[in-house]
Amino acid sequence: MSHTESPTRASPSSNVRAAVVGATGYTGAEMLRILYQHPRVRLGSVCGHSKAGLRVADVLPHFAGILDQEIESIDAQRLAREHDAIFCCLPHGAGAQLVADLHASGRTVFDLSADFRLRDTSVYRNWYGDHPASALVPQATYGLVELYRERLRSAQLVAVPGCYPTAAIVGLAPLLDAGLIKPLDIVIDAKSGASGAGRTLREGSLFAEVDSGIRSYKLAGTHRHTPEIEQALSDIAQERVTVTFSPHLTPMTRGILSTSYALWSKEITADLCTEAARSFYADAPLITVLDPEKHPDTNSVRGTSRSMVSYHVDKRVGRVVTVASIDNLLKGAASQALQAFNVRFGFPEEYGLTSLGPWP
Amino acid sequence: MSHTESPTRASPSSNVRAAVVGATGYTGAEMLRILYQHPRVRLGSVCGHSKAGLRVADVLPHFAGILDQEIESIDAQRLAREHDAIFCCLPHGAGAQLVADLHASGRTVFDLSADFRLRDTSVYRNWYGDHPASALVPQATYGLVELYRERLRSAQLVAVPGCYPTAAIVGLAPLLDAGLIKPLDIVIDAKSGASGAGRTLREGSLFAEVDSGIRSYKLAGTHRHTPEIEQALSDIAQERVTVTFSPHLTPMTRGILSTSYALWSKEITADLCTEAARSFYADAPLITVLDPEKHPDTNSVRGTSRSMVSYHVDKRVGRVVTVASIDNLLKGAASQALQAFNVRFGFPEEYGLTSLGPWP
Amino acid sequence: MSHTESPTRASPSSNVRAAVVGATGYTGAEMLRILYQHPRVRLGSVCGHSKAGLRVADVLPHFAGILDQEIESIDAQRLAREHDAIFCCLPHGAGAQLVADLHASGRTVFDLSADFRLRDTSVYRNWYGDHPASALVPQATYGLVELYRERLRSAQLVAVPGCYPTAAIVGLAPLLDAGLIKPLDIVIDAKSGASGAGRTLREGSLFAEVDSGIRSYKLAGTHRHTPEIEQALSDIAQERVTVTFSPHLTPMTRGILSTSYALWSKEITADLCTEAARSFYADAPLITVLDPEKHPDTNSVRGTSRSMVSYHVDKRVGRVVTVASIDNLLKGAASQALQAFNVRFGFPEEYGLTSLGPWP
Amino acid sequence: MSHTESPTRASPSSNVRAAVVGATGYTGAEMLRILYQHPRVRLGSVCGHSKAGLRVADVLPHFAGILDQEIESIDAQRLAREHDAIFCCLPHGAGAQLVADLHASGRTVFDLSADFRLRDTSVYRNWYGDHPASALVPQATYGLVELYRERLRSAQLVAVPGCYPTAAIVGLAPLLDAGLIKPLDIVIDAKSGASGAGRTLREGSLFAEVDSGIRSYKLAGTHRHTPEIEQALSDIAQERVTVTFSPHLTPMTRGILSTSYALWSKEITADLCTEAARSFYADAPLITVLDPEKHPDTNSVRGTSRSMVSYHVDKRVGRVVTVASIDNLLKGAASQALQAFNVRFGFPEEYGLTSLGPWP
Repeated sequence: MSHTESPTRASPSSNVRAAVVGATGYTGAEMLRILYQHPRVRLGSVCGHSKAGLRVADVLPHFAGILDQEIESIDAQRLAREHDAIFCCLPHGAGAQLVADLHASGRTVFDLSADFRLRDTSVYRNWYGDHPASALVPQATYGLVELYRERLRSAQLVAVPGCYPTAAIVGLAPLLDAGLIKPLDIVIDAKSGASGAGRTLREGSLFAEVDSGIRSYKLAGTHRHTPEIEQALSDIAQERVTVTFSPHLTPMTRGILSTSYALWSKEITADLCTEAARSFYADAPLITVLDPEKHPDTNSVRGTSRSMVSYHVDKRVGRVVTVASIDNLLKGAASQALQAFNVRFGFPEEYGLTSLGPWP
Repeated sequence: MSHTESPTRASPSSNVRAAVVGATGYTGAEMLRILYQHPRVRLGSVCGHSKAGLRVADVLPHFAGILDQEIESIDAQRLAREHDAIFCCLPHGAGAQLVADLHASGRTVFDLSADFRLRDTSVYRNWYGDHPASALVPQATYGLVELYRERLRSAQLVAVPGCYPTAAIVGLAPLLDAGLIKPLDIVIDAKSGASGAGRTLREGSLFAEVDSGIRSYKLAGTHRHTPEIEQALSDIAQERVTVTFSPHLTPMTRGILSTSYALWSKEITADLCTEAARSFYADAPLITVLDPEKHPDTNSVRGTSRSMVSYHVDKRVGRVVTVASIDNLLKGAASQALQAFNVRFGFPEEYGLTSLGPWP
Repeated sequence: MSHTESPTRASPSSNVRAAVVGATGYTGAEMLRILYQHPRVRLGSVCGHSKAGLRVADVLPHFAGILDQEIESIDAQRLAREHDAIFCCLPHGAGAQLVADLHASGRTVFDLSADFRLRDTSVYRNWYGDHPASALVPQATYGLVELYRERLRSAQLVAVPGCYPTAAIVGLAPLLDAGLIKPLDIVIDAKSGASGAGRTLREGSLFAEVDSGIRSYKLAGTHRHTPEIEQALSDIAQERVTVTFSPHLTPMTRGILSTSYALWSKEITADLCTEAARSFYADAPLITVLDPEKHPDTNSVRGTSRSMVSYHVDKRVGRVVTVASIDNLLKGAASQALQAFNVRFGFPEEYGLTSLGPWP
Repeated sequence: MSHTESPTRASPSSNVRAAVVGATGYTGAEMLRILYQHPRVRLGSVCGHSKAGLRVADVLPHFAGILDQEIESIDAQRLAREHDAIFCCLPHGAGAQLVADLHASGRTVFDLSADFRLRDTSVYRNWYGDHPASALVPQATYGLVELYRERLRSAQLVAVPGCYPTAAIVGLAPLLDAGLIKPLDIVIDAKSGASGAGRTLREGSLFAEVDSGIRSYKLAGTHRHTPEIEQALSDIAQERVTVTFSPHLTPMTRGILSTSYALWSKEITADLCTEAARSFYADAPLITVLDPEKHPDTNSVRGTSRSMVSYHVDKRVGRVVTVASIDNLLKGAASQALQAFNVRFGFPEEYGLTSLGPWP
């Protein structure tokens, strides 16, 4: 059956030993879950700052009866000694020194923060402040597998993409690659579930203030994911791409729906865009390009490592609309990290990531 | 206190007698509620098709113990005989003959369907099919009070605007009026709650299929509200305006958030846009223009007749972003009808419509 | 029309001057909203601790363009000097000294905390710790208007009931009053929306951890509302009543649905219970007793000051089931306080509290 | 690693061929998903009534790009000829003749309707009407694996339990088995997500009418799951058990939380109950008994085949409270069917059912 995992099981000794740092946030929780279920990973240390000393199930209740180990404090030496791969789920800035230490020890690091995504440290400084480990930036590989697959095979430091950039890039990349749209003047209107704000305590993340309403924030080019999107899209277009990126907080826990608008470079149809995308993603098992009369729904990818995209053309005004849906904690974070890990360690990229999500 | 209603009560005989047709859908239910609470309205017949003969509270449970009258079948003669104003909440096409009959009887009709919104019946035909009462179209006044207030004072047939058009127009009108943006190439990305699809039974409206996910539909200029938006915006701009309008179904019951993108016509700031809008809405008591660092949230207008708008500028790319929030069943339907009624019958336009909504 | 407010407006000087302390939490926000809209209240100071100095709309976004005053720090002398009634929405313990000072100044205080609800201070100590102002306890009147209406007419200190107790008592009181059920062995299974936990920051209140799931907490007689429920029910029954009270956190912002189970004292029918309740609530304009084949839904009372109750009998096992729904922030807090205020200041108890809520 | 699936893969020819009838409802969709992912199942026909002829992904959008086969009409002969096991997800009554035909053909049938759950056809008649295939009732085995595991090893017709009964029984069974509670006078207050009502179109299931509110229905012994619960609990207790069962519709898509109340038979502690349950479930890999200070949350089992239960004692009144959480579409339907299938076909009962669900 085509959907099943590896037909031959490796001996335990050939498994890859992996650790999770920052395991008790929402991204860390998903990282932990999918590593725990990966057939060729041996889960080692589960580390955290404020919750070190507690047991996993005290902090992440769905692990009750499943995973009872203690959350360890963060110790770079032990992490390096006992693991082949470390997944770092700390906020930007907080994990950079650890990443540097682990990298120096020769371990493969998957960093889910923004620290190593921007190649130009002056751009980083504009958006995030001084870079905490700028010397390491040139060593990093941007972990959007569908675009940088070859480079990832030998990567030692993977900068796992942001959630919004993933959704935006996945939809727009095929159009830019095929030269079907103009590289300037792109609008990206993205809608994210509340888990995107993480487990940090703030009034605006309380149930009562998110439930039943939608709101915009950081509009008009002020959100930090803007330069990350432009960097990747410019790579594909091989010229400078600029975007207006607008995030919205949607009353749902998971999912990003990214609706992008671009002017066509010549008259085209939705079918042509769809074909271009199917060709572009011919070797990408986790991306589904829908027919133009269908629409991605975040519910159809929730709990999965997949992305669904669709293409539409407003011929009256010469504009292409593309929609992409992902689960922000999986393809937008944890499963993208594991997909890059698979490429790096020689497994099929979708290995351990093909589960369908519950629907409805 | 400025927020209180009329200081002097009219004698009951001077009240306006009003009826609701199509009272058992979501818009009808809100129409009923706000008419019932209006200090100068005497609620008469409550009519429906399939639920005639039942009592209001059997169909609308929140009226239990409040409003116990029977839902009547639709009888144009009795409606005309016993009422001054009739609010027709039937789907497009279904109420046109009734509207024509009531209009012929000299009654004032507020039609919440799409039938009389488009001035050009050939445009109507393209989007909805043959017009059911085309001769009446020139008699109708588009009921977006903030834009067409003067004409509404003597209107006999009010075409109450659609929910999406209201949100889009409220945000963009001041910019077009002031010539701050280019009239072509506007993108409108709108997010609506599920009540916008009405009480019609379909799988895609079931809780399990709407909850926790967001999806697009009728993209790239295929939604029927597109020409309505363009008609009103062209009126303001006094030149042809074209838009790409994209609706999204959001997991919430009420609210529309409309995020619009336009190229500036010359270099401007968010403050300038905000001032222009405050000037434009100086006499509009139900519209609040927020400071640029704030963002409309549909939760802040839920259950109210208000709209909140804000303006933002992405100066890197020369684009203005405006966001508007409304309650789709109120400012997007029922309260907009009642606001037009207030203008038509000589009350302050916000009369009976100033209640704050529950928050959170 | 019976639903409208006072036909004659008082002169402004006859209005009651009211202040809100602790205005920026969820209960405080609703207190503010309904006081602001009450026709005979002149809203004075809006006070808070941590947010003093900010403007109301900075903290409560739905007041943007409506109420722009500054949040003041808490000053007992000024509060007493400038107001007739003070609504204190601080957590238990935190406001007791202020309440004592205001009471000593002769002002009427409505305290929404638990501090003055329990008549027996030793019971208070068991559940909350040492009482912060025990000498004042005998001066307090429990503010559940439907049960203690007469005492409230002259109350100087009103202990506004808890949200869970209100829902439980409203449903069970008629049955105990009429002797239809046994006073022991009552089970109360209550489901509350997340706003019941307040605006306090904690992981368990974040959207992502409340959304889409239901959970119990503080089961088996460990929740602090247990003695409050038993005190009021024992008053009605005129004998000791014991209950097993079980709260549940439900994925909705507002509402409590309280399902109670009691053994009948003799064979009865649901109709008989319904009649007994209608008789008991004959003079209670804010309570609707439904027919037995109907069920209260928190959606039907959301945003209102009403309660709906229903009665059902499982004759196979001799048990009465009663269900009551309220909006926890209104009838469970703010509107209950204002209802008691109305009684205290000589207005009809439902004055300013009859608005219907938006539905759906 | 203990959590992984079978270390040795069977040859394809040894896979069990399975079909799903009624695949396009919510239970059918989950049945399809977990069969598709089961390592030893070869998915054959996917059948439906009204949607026959469409493709799976047209009706179940999460299968886009995954499962593209056509939905077939229901043909008993072909089903029997090409499959070893048939999972029938039709409503009660609708599939009984098909079940009888397939059973006569020697196929193993897992019927997810209520038709074969009640051993006493006169009880069935009282609650559902005349039995459509009463002769087959004695052949059926009730599929609650944790209680009837041995009988299921040779079952040819499995009556898969209802969702509410599963949650109620899982919590109460250990207490009755150990004689810790009295068998009469048990109260079961259950809260279900909206998917429990299925994909049938009705106003009460629309998003706008379920969202943000909770309501009871079919109270006081009128819900059809009452006799099913009593039958299974009486089996365990070996004496007649009676319950008052009260279902509630909760604003979430999935999950049942069942809170049950019983009088203790002698003085006991929560720890004792917990130990009894752990002993009772010592061989049940899919049930987790939590410590008494913890509480099951439906979110912790959503998307999984697991159940979490906890035990609490209100010693003031001598009552045991037990809470159980399940995913109503999995342990309450589809995964329970597959768990029974595993037992019947000689696989470990948790085979293919150990995936952790996404959290949050």
